[in-house]
Order: sequence, then C-alpha cells, then structure tokens
Amino acid sequence: MAGFTQLFVPGPTNVPEVVRQAMNMPMEDMRAPDYPSFTRGLFTDLMKVFRNETGRVFIFPSSGTGAWESAITNTLNPGDRVLMSRFGQFSHLWVDMAERFGLDVDVVDVEWGTGVPVEIYTERLAKDKEHRIKAVFVTHNETATGVTSDVAAVRAALNAAKHPALLFVDGVSSVGSIDFRQEEWGVDLAVSGSQKGFMLPPGLGFLSVSQKALAAAVAAKHHRCYFSFEDQIRANDTGFFPYTPAVQLLRGLRAALDLIQEEGLERIFERHNRLATGVRKAVDAWGLHVCAKEPKWHSDTVSAILVPEGIDSADVVRRAYHGYQTSLGVGLNKVAGKVFRIGHLGWVNEVMMCGAISAAEMALRDCGVKVQPGSGVGAALEHYRLSAQPAVAKAA
Amino acid sequence: MAGFTQLFVPGPTNVPEVVRQAMNMPMEDMRAPDYPSFTRGLFTDLMKVFRNETGRVFIFPSSGTGAWESAITNTLNPGDRVLMSRFGQFSHLWVDMAERFGLDVDVVDVEWGTGVPVEIYTERLAKDKEHRIKAVFVTHNETATGVTSDVAAVRAALNAAKHPALLFVDGVSSVGSIDFRQEEWGVDLAVSGSQKGFMLPPGLGFLSVSQKALAAAVAAKHHRCYFSFEDQIRANDTGFFPYTPAVQLLRGLRAALDLIQEEGLERIFERHNRLATGVRKAVDAWGLHVCAKEPKWHSDTVSAILVPEGIDSADVVRRAYHGYQTSLGVGLNKVAGKVFRIGHLGWVNEVMMCGAISAAEMALRDCGVKVQPGSGVGAALEHYRLSAQPAVAKAA
Amino acid sequence: MAGFTQLFVPGPTNVPEVVRQAMNMPMEDMRAPDYPSFTRGLFTDLMKVFRNETGRVFIFPSSGTGAWESAITNTLNPGDRVLMSRFGQFSHLWVDMAERFGLDVDVVDVEWGTGVPVEIYTERLAKDKEHRIKAVFVTHNETATGVTSDVAAVRAALNAAKHPALLFVDGVSSVGSIDFRQEEWGVDLAVSGSQKGFMLPPGLGFLSVSQKALAAAVAAKHHRCYFSFEDQIRANDTGFFPYTPAVQLLRGLRAALDLIQEEGLERIFERHNRLATGVRKAVDAWGLHVCAKEPKWHSDTVSAILVPEGIDSADVVRRAYHGYQTSLGVGLNKVAGKVFRIGHLGWVNEVMMCGAISAAEMALRDCGVKVQPGSGVGAALEHYRLSAQPAVAKAA
Amino acid sequence: MAGFTQLFVPGPTNVPEVVRQAMNMPMEDMRAPDYPSFTRGLFTDLMKVFRNETGRVFIFPSSGTGAWESAITNTLNPGDRVLMSRFGQFSHLWVDMAERFGLDVDVVDVEWGTGVPVEIYTERLAKDKEHRIKAVFVTHNETATGVTSDVAAVRAALNAAKHPALLFVDGVSSVGSIDFRQEEWGVDLAVSGSQKGFMLPPGLGFLSVSQKALAAAVAAKHHRCYFSFEDQIRANDTGFFPYTPAVQLLRGLRAALDLIQEEGLERIFERHNRLATGVRKAVDAWGLHVCAKEPKWHSDTVSAILVPEGIDSADVVRRAYHGYQTSLGVGLNKVAGKVFRIGHLGWVNEVMMCGAISAAEMALRDCGVKVQPGSGVGAALEHYRLSAQPAVAKAA
Repeated sequence: MAGFTQLFVPGPTNVPEVVRQAMNMPMEDMRAPDYPSFTRGLFTDLMKVFRNETGRVFIFPSSGTGAWESAITNTLNPGDRVLMSRFGQFSHLWVDMAERFGLDVDVVDVEWGTGVPVEIYTERLAKDKEHRIKAVFVTHNETATGVTSDVAAVRAALNAAKHPALLFVDGVSSVGSIDFRQEEWGVDLAVSGSQKGFMLPPGLGFLSVSQKALAAAVAAKHHRCYFSFEDQIRANDTGFFPYTPAVQLLRGLRAALDLIQEEGLERIFERHNRLATGVRKAVDAWGLHVCAKEPKWHSDTVSAILVPEGIDSADVVRRAYHGYQTSLGVGLNKVAGKVFRIGHLGWVNEVMMCGAISAAEMALRDCGVKVQPGSGVGAALEHYRLSAQPAVAKAA
Repeated sequence: MAGFTQLFVPGPTNVPEVVRQAMNMPMEDMRAPDYPSFTRGLFTDLMKVFRNETGRVFIFPSSGTGAWESAITNTLNPGDRVLMSRFGQFSHLWVDMAERFGLDVDVVDVEWGTGVPVEIYTERLAKDKEHRIKAVFVTHNETATGVTSDVAAVRAALNAAKHPALLFVDGVSSVGSIDFRQEEWGVDLAVSGSQKGFMLPPGLGFLSVSQKALAAAVAAKHHRCYFSFEDQIRANDTGFFPYTPAVQLLRGLRAALDLIQEEGLERIFERHNRLATGVRKAVDAWGLHVCAKEPKWHSDTVSAILVPEGIDSADVVRRAYHGYQTSLGVGLNKVAGKVFRIGHLGWVNEVMMCGAISAAEMALRDCGVKVQPGSGVGAALEHYRLSAQPAVAKAA
Repeated sequence: MAGFTQLFVPGPTNVPEVVRQAMNMPMEDMRAPDYPSFTRGLFTDLMKVFRNETGRVFIFPSSGTGAWESAITNTLNPGDRVLMSRFGQFSHLWVDMAERFGLDVDVVDVEWGTGVPVEIYTERLAKDKEHRIKAVFVTHNETATGVTSDVAAVRAALNAAKHPALLFVDGVSSVGSIDFRQEEWGVDLAVSGSQKGFMLPPGLGFLSVSQKALAAAVAAKHHRCYFSFEDQIRANDTGFFPYTPAVQLLRGLRAALDLIQEEGLERIFERHNRLATGVRKAVDAWGLHVCAKEPKWHSDTVSAILVPEGIDSADVVRRAYHGYQTSLGVGLNKVAGKVFRIGHLGWVNEVMMCGAISAAEMALRDCGVKVQPGSGVGAALEHYRLSAQPAVAKAA
Repeated sequence: MAGFTQLFVPGPTNVPEVVRQAMNMPMEDMRAPDYPSFTRGLFTDLMKVFRNETGRVFIFPSSGTGAWESAITNTLNPGDRVLMSRFGQFSHLWVDMAERFGLDVDVVDVEWGTGVPVEIYTERLAKDKEHRIKAVFVTHNETATGVTSDVAAVRAALNAAKHPALLFVDGVSSVGSIDFRQEEWGVDLAVSGSQKGFMLPPGLGFLSVSQKALAAAVAAKHHRCYFSFEDQIRANDTGFFPYTPAVQLLRGLRAALDLIQEEGLERIFERHNRLATGVRKAVDAWGLHVCAKEPKWHSDTVSAILVPEGIDSADVVRRAYHGYQTSLGVGLNKVAGKVFRIGHLGWVNEVMMCGAISAAEMALRDCGVKVQPGSGVGAALEHYRLSAQPAVAKAA
C-alpha cells in the first residue's frame, strides 16, 4: 500500500527525525575512553525529566517491564506486604509480577475506567499502624483504559498516616508527557520506558529512584543480577555499564533529551493536554464516550474509546490498519472488543491527530458505527485552532 | 515544534521509507566493474514508466528544468518555429526557455485554469502546409493551476494534419502519477523529474525520447555538452555515464521503480484519481472552487484552490506552515495570492490527505475564510471510504 | 578527527549496511495484525543459526547477560549443584551470576589462556553417580582471552558418564561466527547476543533451548518474570511478545539473518578462520604471542595479544583510539594491562583486518614496542591473498 | 561478500557519518518561508571554502561538469580565444567542452605527468598585446594523473603581462582539500563539485565567481538557461533557487561545511599532505613510481601509480575490487592500463589509507608485481606515526 503508515498506538510512539538521524550510526565501543563523557550527560538529563533531584536513574537494555522487575527485586523481599490497585491490563500485569516475586499483595480492585482509589489507600495506610505495608504502588497512567491517577494524593495519604512505605510509580506512559514530579511527590521508584514520551524505539527501561529506595536496596535480599542496582551503580559511577548497553538507543536518547529540553516540560505537558482535549472533543462529537469515567481520570496520553453495543472494537482497529494504514490500539483484557485506543503522546501534533481521528471515522463507519463524517475531526481541529499559539480566531 | 512536518506541495513529494533506506548508503564507485549491471535495469524500468517502448531514456543529474533544456538543445536549432501554449507558471517558464534558446515561438496564451487549446493547435497545424513548425509543446500537467491537458488529442491533431513536427511533453508532474503513454501517443520528448511521481528527492532529470527525436538530435546544431544526447548515448551504452552521476539518487531510483512496478501503473493512476477526487469534494464542501475551469481540466496530482476575494492565499500557506507544520503550495505568478495548492501525488494515501485537508481548514479559518470545520475532511474521507477496496459501506 | 572510526573490539561489531538500512525505519505497532507473519520467520531462521532443530529460541530485549540469567532462572533452583570453569572475565562473571542466584557452584579454575578442562569435567561427571550435578557450563569462546573450548568434548564426557545434567553454553562471541551445533552436541541452553556474530547493535539477548531444557523449566521454581520462558512461549506461540519487543532491532535481525543465510554458515566459519589466521600471523611476525596457550585454544573471533613486560596494554589501546581513531579491546580483570584485543568477528573482511593490524602496529610502536613497521600487516595480507578464492599466487 | 567495501577512488569520496545522518531526512518544501534562512548560510560558508571574499558562489543541481559549462557559457562567447593546457583526461575533457561551445582554443599539450606549463602561458600572454585571449584555464589538480599545478604562478604571469583575461580554475578535486585561494590568486571562475573535498554524494556543482566574472556575464551572449548566472542571482538573492534544488544534498552540504569549519582549512590541507606523503612513501617502498614526474607536481588528493611494463593496471583495479572489496581508480585515456589511482582526499585518515595500501599490495601481488608484502603499508604507517600530533617516536 502507498503512503506512510500512521502510528497512533500508545507506544511505540513516533520517533522524531533528529532522533532517527542520531540512531543512523555505525557501531561504537562502549568501553571507549571518552564514552563516560557521553553517558554522564544522559544520566543528568534523564533525572531532569523525572524531576528527580537527589536520587539517581538507571538505564537498562530492556522494556519497561524489566524496570518494573528491577524496582521490585532491588527494594523488596519475598513476603513483603504491598498495597496495589488494579483497573486495567497494565496495573493487572504489575500485580501479577509482584505476586510472582512472592510479595504479599493487598490488591484493591476498582472499576476499569477509574484509577488509584486514594480513599481506600488512605484508609489502609491509616490502619497499618505496624507499618507492615512496605510499598504502595501507583499506576500513574493506565495505558489500557486511558486513566490517569493522582500520585500527589497518594503521597499526601502516606504523609497523613506518617507511613514509611516506599512509593512505587509506573510512569511508563506518563513520564515526559504529563506532569510528573518525583522529588516533590516523594516518589521512590518511578519506572518508564524509551518508547512512549521519550520518543525512542523500544529497548530501554528507565528506573528513577530516590535515596530512600537506594537505601532499601542495600537491605533487600532478592536474587538479582541483570537488574541489580549495585552492579549498575558500580559501573555507572565510572561512566560505564555492567554489561553491553544498547549503544544505538543511547545515542537516540541523547537526541531525544535535547528535544525535550528544547521544548520544555511545561510546554510538552500543555501540548499533550491540547491534543488530548481535541481527541476527546471528537469523541463527544461522535456521540461516543471514553473509557475513563470522569474528567478527573482523563489521560492526556491515550484515549480508550468505547464502541457501541454490538460492535467489536477489534474490527475497527483491523479496518483502520488494513483499510487506511493506520495503527490504533486494541482493547486489552476486560475491555477487549469494547474499546479502541488512540495514542496521543510523544512526537505528535495537530495535523497528525486530525489524521488519526479521520482514520477512526472511516473505520468506525466501515464497521457500522453511525458517526457523522467529519464531525470528530471538525471538533478537534477547531479546538486546536482556537487553542493555538498565537491565538487566532477569525472565522469563529 | 513537535511532530512531523506534513508535506503537500506538488513536489518535492514524500519519499517512501524503502527509498529512504536505499539512499542511506556509503558512497560507491560509479566506475565499478559491476556498475553497468545496476544501471541497465534502471534504464529499462524507467522506460516502462514512460511507456516508451522503442526509444530511450536519459537520466541527468539535474532538475526537470535541465531535462527541458536537453530536449530543446538536442533536437531544435535557433530560429526553428515551435508551437506552444501558456496558461500557468510552468508553461510560462517553458516558453521563456524556448525563446532564450532562440526558437521562433508561436505562443498561444489561454486563460489560466484551462490547458492546451487543442482546437487552436489543430487549426495552426492544418494551416502549416510547409511544415515550418518543427515542434509542438504540451504541458501535460500545469502544476501552478492544477490543469491536465489532453496529449492524445494533440497527437490526433498532428496526425490529422499529417504534420511531422516533434511532440514535446512536459510530464514533470504527470509521469508516474497519471496516465501517460509515450508510445501510443507518439510523444517524441517527454520530460520528468525525480521529485514528483517518482517519489525521490529532487536531483534527477529524466528525458524519454523517441527514435524520431534521436534522429533529430543528430542534425541539431545547438551548442550543448552537459545535456547532450550523444555523450549520454556513448556512455550509457556501456552502462556508465559521461560524468559523475548522482549515485545516491540512482540507488533510490531503483527502490522507487520497484515500488512502482509492485503497485502497477494502473493502480497508481486509480489511487491518484481517488485521492484527488476526495480533495475536490472537500473544496466543494467548503464552498470554494479549484482553479481548473472545468472537470476535464482537473488534475489528479495537484489542486489549486481559489480563496475568496479579500483573502491572500499566501497567508493561508504561511499560517498552515507556521501554525500547523504543514507545507501547502503557494500561488505563483498570475495566481499569486489567489490560490493555494494541495499536492496529492506520489507516496500519499487517504489519511495523509485528510491531514492536508484538516490543515487547510484550520489555516483557512484562521485567515477568516468561513469554511465549516470538518466539512471538507468529512466529504473527503467519506469518498475515500466508499471508494476503498474492498468496498465497505455499512454506515452510509 | 577526520575519517571513519575503525571498530575492532569483540563486540559491538560492525553493522552491515543492509542491516543499518533496515533499522532506518519509522516505529511500528508490535501488535499489528500482520506482525506475527514477520516474527515467525525470525524464530525459524534464528534456530538455524544455532543449529537447533527440535527446541526453540527466545529473543529478549536485553544484553547477552540477560539471556544468561534467563537460562539459569528458568531451569535451575537455588541450591542446585552445577559444574563450571573459570579462565577469563566472562566465565568469571558467569560463575558470579550462578553464585548470586544461589546455585552450588563447583568452580574449576584453570589458567587464563586455556579453556574448559574437559578431563576434569569428565572426571567429576564420572564420579557424580547420584547426579547431583544439575548442569554443566561451557564458555564456548572466552572473549577476554581469545580462547575457544571444545563443546563437543564436554558432550562426549556427559554421554560417557551417562550423565543427565543440562549442558549450558555461553555462545555470545561464538554463535554465528564459529562452528556451533546445538542439536548435534546436545546443548540444552545456548546463550548469545545481537552485537557479535549477528552483526547488530547490542540490545537483543538470544537463548536457544532444547526440549529437555523446556521440560526442566516447568519444574524450576526460581522467581522470574521478565526472563521467564512460560510468558515468552505463551506470547511467541501467537507471533507476539509478552511485553514490548525491540522492534527496530528485530527489523535489523531480519536483514542480518538474510545475510547469514546468503553467505552460509560454513563459508562464514571459513572466513572467520582465514581472517583470524592472518591476525595470528601478524602477531607472530611482530614477535609477540596471543594469550591462548596452544593452537587448540585459538579463537577465530577474537585475539588477545600479550604485550612485552614493561608495557601497559591499556596505553596501546588508548593510543590506537586517540591517535588513530581505532577501537581495540582492552585487557580485562587478570589480563588488564597485559593484553589488548583485536576482534575479528562479524561483518569483517581482509582489508578491514589489515587496517586493524596497521593501527595496532602504529600504537605498539608509539608505546615503545619494537615491532617492525609493516611486518604484521604484510604477514596477514600475504595469508589473505594466498587463501583467497579464487586462489591467486602469482607474486609468491 | 562480507565486510565494508572500501572506497579509494578520487571521487565520489567517503561521506562522513554526520553528513549521512543529515541526509537521512524526509523531503521538505524548498519554497518554505524559512528556507532562505537556511540557504543564506550555505552561500556564505561555501564562499569561505573557496576563499572568495568579494564575489559570489552558485550551487547547481549538477555534476562539476555542469559548473564547467556554466563558467564558459556565462562569461565567454563563441569565437573567444582562450588559453588552455592538456595533460590528462580531465584537462582533455575541458578543452573538448570549450571547443564544442565554439571557443577558439589555444591548447598547449604537455606531457602527462606534468601540469600547467606556466612558462608557455607566460610567453603567450606576454605576446598577446591585443588581449585577444579572453580567458586562461588552469586545471588545478588533474585527477587522472595526480598532478597539481601552480595557480598562483599563472596569476603572476597574468599580472606580469598586465593581461585582463579571466582566470578559470578547475578545482573539482582540489578545493577544500588542498590550498586554494580565490581572492588572493585572483581566480575569476573556480569550479568544484560535491563529491570530492566536500565529502558529499555527487549531485551538486559549485561555481565560485569574482566580481569581474559577474560583470563579464552581463555581456556574454551564449544561450544559457539552466546554468545561467542571472537566473540564479535573481532567485538566490531572495534565498531561493530558480528551479527545484537538490534539497537532500543541501542539508548534507550544511553538515559538511560545519565539519570543514570545525577542522579548519589549514588543518585539512595538512592532513591531506600527511596522508598523501604516506602513500608516496609506500609507492617508493614498492619500487614503483607515481605518474607525476616531479615532486612539484605531486597531488595531495590522488596518486596515480605506474605499474611495471607487462602489467595491465586495469587488472590490478579489478582484482582489488573483486578480491578485496576495494575500489581503486582506473587509468583513463592515455594512461589506461598504465596507472591505477588511490584517492586520498576528503573524509580519510591514517588507518583508512593503510587499508587502501594493503589492498593495493594484495592486488599487485595477485597480478604478478613483486612488491614486498607489507613494505608499502609499513612505510606509510611509520610516516603517519612519526608525523602524528602529538608526535610520538618511542620505537623509532
């Protein structure tokens, strides 16, 4: 088929041209004498994206799942009690991993379309006078349902209870795209990956940790090697890695961090909000609904859109892919067949989103959903136009 | 600014990924012993795109303008009478070149928005009993106004008059995108360039010639060297070039020709027609008009869209570029300020065109044109959907 | 500095242009409906490189170290007795990992410059009537010392003792470069990585397993998640992965596997032997010695070259890098300061090796080693010339 | 075949990685509002490479041959008398072009292996009291024989004769690699191309002109269009081009100019001299000779090496290509079969040259030339080592 394939899954996301150029490189020796002068800047600038000021960050050749594993195995022990909540495929998988590593998981299941139940967390933390809970887990942005949770509120709950538990955050589809403040929110372990807000191909797992987490790691006895903090620290402190790093992605990371610094985190967050709002206006114009139950749960990085009864959302995704060369996200687990997803994170802009919405309109209509042609994209583009800088509103 | 820049000028056009990959190469020796085995396939397959069966094709490291110059200087002499028509910036420039090379140009000026005046050509050819007219020029697709002319009809006029004049065709923005049949239409010199339907960066000029043109070249006395047929023929016959060819673009050309063969010319033409029709439906839905006066002039590779009185089309183009990272084509010469252009040729598909139309809607509204948001893109996408293969029409 | 940097470390190795082109790509959806049709071919063809006919292969987004970890945690339990030998930095690290995962490691330390002590293994296996040894480990090619061990002999020892232990092989710097026959040698777990014989950037860990290893995995109780077989099997069987794979490297892997198939494993092995022999002839001509004590230990993928007393090999490496833009490998651990290494594996040829040897000659002389200028490269190139296909020996 | 192909023809030359990265780009609109801000820097910085301070430079989508044609057709008229000399394939072709454009060429044929005969030029200019000679041509570096001529001396001859003729210089294989000073030497038209010292793929012709040449262009009446100064000037003055420029190469040019500025012209010239001297030392060590008759003619960008009687140099080149994946330059015209050429210009360094010499040694010996294996590369590398910065001479 002709023309570019359009990518609007919530990861991997579109790679900027300068990042792609930076990765178009011959191989290099990761033990070269001047390699540390390159790697040190990566660590420093990666910390800034997490807004981690006093801890450190690890870069693993892995997916974000590997960084999850690193977080758990370095700071917790089998049998440790942890507080988690489950409301989508990724929070589900995280619980699953915690259980497989022998943690004593107190899972709070809440309705899919909502997020971390801060009230319940507050209650359980308050009750836990003996501090049996060693860690509290927050899926900042549930990629399966397009739900963003309130990390700051969980920190407030911990503080209110004067509870010493570690605060774990899955920031895979949030960090670098929506507001995240590790230092201010007292997050101890924040996980992310290269292929979302960092605008890189998949292959790097990031783990940003606090001093408290580093201290916990010294005591934790889980078997670990590939994902161990101590090996990384020893090597990273000299500017190297304990085993061969993904050198091509590291060069891409440099370019991506430069882009992030150039645009600035605040403007990036604002852009994601504008683009996401446009998508939500399109959904409204179609007469459909996003999976997130209330505006407070709305994710600015991905929208999961509910299709009408009788329609299989997987058909919509397949139709967009085969008919219009556009990758939309499928529904996963409980919402399989019920939602399709539009990723609006990373290296995206207004016209790209109009393309995504156009593809969705065609696919929806092909599958029998009676959305008005042009209604969604019209609503979105008018929002983009009116919220653009500098504001222009002549035709309004 | 974030996200991909969108390119919808009528050239350079978007380069397919496989072509881009093919050009991501180290340099090579264009005198290598096995280079001819590579170049021969280029010539053969390039002929097929022109549907030139019995002549030959030249590949110059130049723009299409260079190929124009080659056509004139190799087959005509100063003082030779030629019949040309002028109805846009590119037919204008061609006349200008012919005059600068000392030809005695009989220019027929017709209204911009129309194309080659076949009736007038017919008349003049019929009158020219002494065959003073040495060549008849046809701008197949006037890129400035989005007007396609009827080459076959000009051939018919020549045949009717039993006139021996050479038939020159500017196919820069037509060959490889819309129906062109060099052999069947008896075209003697067809000019094209790499950066339009051939989906390459600019830098190659193509000239496809008939045996009759080759014979004329032997007699023509114009000074020429860089663009001379004889030098090319001598070198090309051994698989090489008379001076250093643009080796990177030649590797890209191989990949592009493979893509063209894979999709097939007929399907390429059909795709261009579908995509162009969608754009025209968008223009209708906006309540605007294309520059081409009648459907018979409609170009399937570029649409020049007239903006309402009081609006400067250059503002629309600037707004799309600066506000929405989208390159649309400006109006040139007589239609400067009056039209903006959407290129819909080369490596394009439905969703890309919806993006182009969305950008145009935003820019038009920003400039005060009261098009209904979503009207154009809705009209286009519904056309794309209904004309898609396999046909699906559930929601209609 | 000008000109290309030359890379002759034993990994990452030079990436072929077609592989580089294949990785020059926009991102793609790893859940696309047609993704399985792509991944299935990867698994099939990767098996062929390992000469694994009846088992299966796993592809992790990790370094080879991750694949080591996967091998251990999926098939062994803490407390399991294993037989290992140590004679270089990488066999050392493997022992270290085994110990950290709680295995009861019977380590045989042998002199660096020799390899797996088959006689001792034979003896210990014969004595182990109760089959307490659950696994026997073989570092096929010790990258730190340039020593290749005899895997087939270890299999023979196991067979002779009718011992059921699993046979683990570290093939990171051997598979795809020198003879390796998983099926014939009864290897149960063979580890490799993308950045050596597979000619890719680092970032993929490969683990090729036998049916016996798969059966062992069902029983093994080690905590594991990221590197678990069961998760991979469940997802791979549908053509997908349990978490986001390194899609860019997978496209590169496709191109690399095509290259391997095109050249053919036998011819690849023969090429590595020719190139390595040339390097060893250069070392002889210099009056120096490789670290490998006897020809039977000579590695065809990397040579560790001993510098004379009083010379620091790290200076040689630094001088080559800073003075001549050439990356040679440093000495690691016990041989730090004593050897420098020339990698001659992957996408290398005669002239590249002559460049490596030339750089080494310059750096050696700069550091005070009195090698005769041109002696090494002369010896190597004459070997390459005489062993070239078709043989030519005119000037001999 | 495996490993990288080595390129040592005197153009196209090796493209630096940053240039290659810069050309790995999507297409762009060469009429974009901000395009002039990009092009202006190109013109300014290109002038610096020519050391043209008061004139201007043109960038054509063409080979250097096109720039030759532009120089002639814009400033001379048919019948104009010009003084040229011929001593190699490229000076030969230039004479041929001048004759084809109707110039009255006074050709001085001198022995191949020597260069511009300054004494004869001096004599003829002195005699030409009526100033019938309109232009004097100098092939600065004859690429076919590896001969560099003395441009400054020709300027001195013109000055001595108080002769107003224009000074034309073919700097295709000299500008940006060896000392060239347009302003100081009073060069009126200096021709170059992208694929030599500019380290780009072929496809751009450069023409750097003096104010005197610009004034001459106003009067010259040659038919011209594609290569006309006036069209370029009109468009360039607005930051654009008169027809579609080779946008991909222009982005590469930006990166190449940055590299040139970073290294600095003086250091570039010094590097070329060092590398060339090493090659000449290798030729000496082989007991062979370069085509250039005396040291004063030695070219620092290319060496043409005479093979012994009875040997066909084309066999050497073919053997290097097919046997060792190395492109050397063939002998052209009168020296076909007699010389092979090693290009040592552009993005080259010591180890690359050692590879080139090694390939030549193997190919020479395969063809029966009894050079001592390692003799040439040994001589070269010892020179490189001793002349390296910072100087190190321990082993000497």
